[in-house]
Amino acid sequence: MDFRELERKVVAFRDARDWKRYHTPKNLAISAAVELGELLEHFQWETDEDIMNYVKDQEAKEAVADEIADVIIYLTLLAHELEIDLDEAVERKLRKNEEKYPVRGD
Amino acid sequence: MDFRELERKVVAFRDARDWKRYHTPKNLAISAAVELGELLEHFQWETDEDIMNYVKDQEAKEAVADEIADVIIYLTLLAHELEIDLDEAVERKLRKNEEKYPVRGD
Amino acid sequence: MDFRELERKVVAFRDARDWKRYHTPKNLAISAAVELGELLEHFQWETDEDIMNYVKDQEAKEAVADEIADVIIYLTLLAHELEIDLDEAVERKLRKNEEKYPVRGD
Amino acid sequence: MDFRELERKVVAFRDARDWKRYHTPKNLAISAAVELGELLEHFQWETDEDIMNYVKDQEAKEAVADEIADVIIYLTLLAHELEIDLDEAVERKLRKNEEKYPVRGD
Repeated sequence: MDFRELERKVVAFRDARDWKRYHTPKNLAISAAVELGELLEHFQWETDEDIMNYVKDQEAKEAVADEIADVIIYLTLLAHELEIDLDEAVERKLRKNEEKYPVRGD
Repeated sequence: MDFRELERKVVAFRDARDWKRYHTPKNLAISAAVELGELLEHFQWETDEDIMNYVKDQEAKEAVADEIADVIIYLTLLAHELEIDLDEAVERKLRKNEEKYPVRGD
Repeated sequence: MDFRELERKVVAFRDARDWKRYHTPKNLAISAAVELGELLEHFQWETDEDIMNYVKDQEAKEAVADEIADVIIYLTLLAHELEIDLDEAVERKLRKNEEKYPVRGD
Repeated sequence: MDFRELERKVVAFRDARDWKRYHTPKNLAISAAVELGELLEHFQWETDEDIMNYVKDQEAKEAVADEIADVIIYLTLLAHELEIDLDEAVERKLRKNEEKYPVRGD
């Protein structure tokens, strides 16, 4: 799935439920932050080693994956509202990172 | 670009710089939260109407797009560490949302 | 209650449960972020007017107050670990803000 | 300094600058999240041991203390808007925590 397909799906999901009126930029950015908080909660008292063990359990791994997916879904809805093309945005940011942090020897 | 291509790119970027040792699950989740904080900063004192006007400026829009892209990039790196397939994770979460919030008449 | 009294209380609470080993700087900062996410969740789909009405209900108001208190409690524990005197830190930050944003006519 | 004194100070600071109109519940909660993101940034790539060394430097420690203070200042302004008494809220939350996590032998 690419970002344009994801955008089509989440916008169709939203429109089928008539939720556009709730999807203001601030509400969507807050929603992404709420879901990121839930992601952090899985890691709250764990060491990195604990976390790597924790996600060996399929159910735990799916719970973490769900939180990551939720953040991405809300960011996709936010990008839609702001008419940001996520494919383009991610490509451009990767290029900026390449320029900002050149590999030694480049 | 789909999530597998994005994953390949961000992992290649990281490995070229020998940054894997910094990319623990906690550090990557914290990094996503840092970037989401920077995204929220753009909206901090603005109304939703202000925000919609603000992103009419191409430079402002690109600045917001950069923050969204940064969160997605860190989440992709986190998913990679945890061996979560983001394509699958997002598809599954969309299906769960469909079940959790049925459309009236379904 | 001032910050020194709060610090004494939360450290005594923690020591009685032998939780010091979990209270690393990163875990405590993550915990503050988790609780702030829960605070944001109360405001996620509401307008500011909705929120002002929502907290007229005593139970709702207490739920919001609990989240704010949780963030403050974790930040107090974090400050304790880093040997930051919160009374002093807040006083100093208020002075910096006064200098950074002078009142017109000052 | 206790929470009532802090509240008086931050509200006086705000009113002297005529900023009340910006201080909606959502804006203040977002502001607390922005500052918490800046706090997390200090810890982003560090181990807990690095962090403990980092704050031995007085300037670094003050920078971290400033971020913690900023979160507390915004939460105090938020509590003020919602007519939440922070002294009372923190006391009540500490009591709830005592009940939720009894000390073995209690």
